[in-house]
Amino acid sequence: MENFETLRQLLDEKKYTAFMRELDKLYPRDAAEFLAGLPLPQQPAVFRMLKKDTAAEIFAELDNDNKERIISALTDSELTQITEELFTDDVVDMLEELPANVVKRVLQSVSPETRATINRFLAYPEDSAGSIMTSEYATLRGDMTVNEAIAHIRKTGYDKETVYTLYVVDGGRKLIGTLELSDLLFGDPDVGISTLIDPNPASVLTTDDRESAAMLIAKYDLLALPVVDSEGRLVGIVTVDDAMDVLENEATEDISKMAAVTPADKPYLKAGVFSIFKKRIPWLLLLMVSATFTGRIILHYENALGMYVILAAFIPMLMDTGGNAGSQASVTVIRSISLGEIEFKNLIPVVWKEIRVSLLCGATLSAAAFIKALFIDRAPVNIALIVCLTILLVVITSKLVGAVLPLLAKLIRLDPAVMASPLITTIVDTLALLIYFGIASAMLGIL
Amino acid sequence: MENFETLRQLLDEKKYTAFMRELDKLYPRDAAEFLAGLPLPQQPAVFRMLKKDTAAEIFAELDNDNKERIISALTDSELTQITEELFTDDVVDMLEELPANVVKRVLQSVSPETRATINRFLAYPEDSAGSIMTSEYATLRGDMTVNEAIAHIRKTGYDKETVYTLYVVDGGRKLIGTLELSDLLFGDPDVGISTLIDPNPASVLTTDDRESAAMLIAKYDLLALPVVDSEGRLVGIVTVDDAMDVLENEATEDISKMAAVTPADKPYLKAGVFSIFKKRIPWLLLLMVSATFTGRIILHYENALGMYVILAAFIPMLMDTGGNAGSQASVTVIRSISLGEIEFKNLIPVVWKEIRVSLLCGATLSAAAFIKALFIDRAPVNIALIVCLTILLVVITSKLVGAVLPLLAKLIRLDPAVMASPLITTIVDTLALLIYFGIASAMLGIL
Repeated sequence: MENFETLRQLLDEKKYTAFMRELDKLYPRDAAEFLAGLPLPQQPAVFRMLKKDTAAEIFAELDNDNKERIISALTDSELTQITEELFTDDVVDMLEELPANVVKRVLQSVSPETRATINRFLAYPEDSAGSIMTSEYATLRGDMTVNEAIAHIRKTGYDKETVYTLYVVDGGRKLIGTLELSDLLFGDPDVGISTLIDPNPASVLTTDDRESAAMLIAKYDLLALPVVDSEGRLVGIVTVDDAMDVLENEATEDISKMAAVTPADKPYLKAGVFSIFKKRIPWLLLLMVSATFTGRIILHYENALGMYVILAAFIPMLMDTGGNAGSQASVTVIRSISLGEIEFKNLIPVVWKEIRVSLLCGATLSAAAFIKALFIDRAPVNIALIVCLTILLVVITSKLVGAVLPLLAKLIRLDPAVMASPLITTIVDTLALLIYFGIASAMLGIL
Repeated sequence: MENFETLRQLLDEKKYTAFMRELDKLYPRDAAEFLAGLPLPQQPAVFRMLKKDTAAEIFAELDNDNKERIISALTDSELTQITEELFTDDVVDMLEELPANVVKRVLQSVSPETRATINRFLAYPEDSAGSIMTSEYATLRGDMTVNEAIAHIRKTGYDKETVYTLYVVDGGRKLIGTLELSDLLFGDPDVGISTLIDPNPASVLTTDDRESAAMLIAKYDLLALPVVDSEGRLVGIVTVDDAMDVLENEATEDISKMAAVTPADKPYLKAGVFSIFKKRIPWLLLLMVSATFTGRIILHYENALGMYVILAAFIPMLMDTGGNAGSQASVTVIRSISLGEIEFKNLIPVVWKEIRVSLLCGATLSAAAFIKALFIDRAPVNIALIVCLTILLVVITSKLVGAVLPLLAKLIRLDPAVMASPLITTIVDTLALLIYFGIASAMLGIL
């Protein structure tokens, strides 16, 4: 941040050489932040001063508004230079977000080969491994020696996104195996690389979910993962930095859905009020309307409530405890599904575990509720008994509903995260009231 | 998985050479899974067959129970070999989890220098960058040429956790800068490396939070991050694979806390029933007891409820809508804090945004609730008016409480995630009832 002061000063004093030297010391991410913080008219001018490769690196880190602004200020030939310099995944990312007229201009600016690649990449479904891969990977032939391979990388590797994992392909671009650059470095120079190749590397198809690509990278501690087409031909790689972003985004999306919010596409502070409203209101409306059941149940037991108003006093506590018990189970199961630890086939062990946990939780809460009702709320013994019996049954029911619903969602290919607290709460509330008034009318002999 | 069949068969037929060749093709993670799946008595025998470095790689991927079992079956000299071969971060991870007698045996098995390193690493606070760093990094001197640097790495780099990022240090081990292996590879062989060094690399202190280390790696797309002591001396590095694990764990912890569960230390399916119970029950008890307020409020308005039982019918809907509206705000703010997008200093813009969003949401819900109360629930107009006015105020209050509490928690260094749905729900329930009965008694002229 302090550097920004120096940079701004150098710029104001028109000391451009010193300015460029200082800017070069920053990470592209920070340089992009600096650029975005400049007065709008100044941005394209500064951007033009940058070296071609630095410019591309910084450009890739800008947000969409800034990208659009820079693009509109660039001449066609400047735009060509930047786009050709960008990695495919960054171009594709950008084109997926920008308005159609800008996309058209960018596509016109590049060479026919680049355009063909970009168009092929744009065709991969959103959320697929193909949509996050890049085409700048380094390949080797299986008959090279270690020395030849190193020489080949020195000559061709400069514009690759990574040369630390190398891909050995045959004449038809079929993936034969992978090789670590360190294996070459520590290998005997004259030995054939075929002895060093990992012949069974993890890989994904272009159409596989991008989350499964990211999870493979996390599981096997990879720096990059090969992406192949249905014929086993290498078409791209996913790098670990993109995998990290995918996992962070997926976690954020899960968390949003668990709180009944449609996942945001912008950081909170940058999102507009109306766009936040639109992501929240459908769920609130849906959940509010589904609370109709609870109202009906209470009205059905109007007489009982008229006679024993104290019954109403325990309604919030019973509903909340049920909701909390259910959320605990559902959120735990949802996260375990996300991390690949649980699938639908684990239903029986999950249910069996939740039955035992809910018996322990239910019994403890039930005892506490009995004592509390009797001594703190000074309720009659029969009411205290009704409350404590209800708690036991509600906790067991809630935990089972909470654990089973996400697994069912997974089975029918719905997102399990939707089955979190808010929906569980609504369902559990209804069940809790039915159990409560059922027990109460039986024990008090009323309807 | 299919490979496991082949492996088991080769083992049964005692074709050990072929077995070892097949096992070598697996990722250490998969080999560990295979080993853990073998009958218990067979595990140490198979483990002994492995080459020293393969054994260490696979050992690092085993879970604690399996590690303990293997250790107890190894002789002291075998244990020494494995421990010396492991990376420091893996040894430290392991020692933090194993029982004291096993720790003692492991520490006795290693060389005095290794023991000193391990003890120093064990002293770093849990959750600090020091606790996840490793000491196996590759260093260079600033006066080397590119060729000398490559030769130096070829000679000394073999047992480092990574040689892709290289650390340039002075005579006192002070970090001067970092260098990418690819820069050496593409550099002029006779040029001094000082021209290629990044002199301002991101770094953390040993005592910094491990999450901030992981977030720097994610932000700048790094493969490894240097960790320095308070005098700027390089003492370790954090690698991107560990950063990924940290971010995944932090997300899981946040999600657990948001559902009022103490974060688990084991995957759900492996955790014991009693240990799950212990992580859930304190929160359930706490939240149940704090629901006392809601009961008190309802009893206080006993007369009003006796006269207008229909008021009771709307209690669940009002509470749930408030809880949902509050959760949406709190969970969004909590996640933004976790991702480093929001801090306490953003309180004013956050509050201003939530006021506008909650007005929009509140007005919409309020209108819907009025129509629903009038035409679906067939409530009298005055009751419908009370309900719709309450909804408006409850939604605004809930969203403000939900957004502000996590920021306050952050300010007083509590974990914001604790301020999620369950706690918000309990607070909002109380507020909702106060607002509801306040408006009702004013409009119906009762107390």
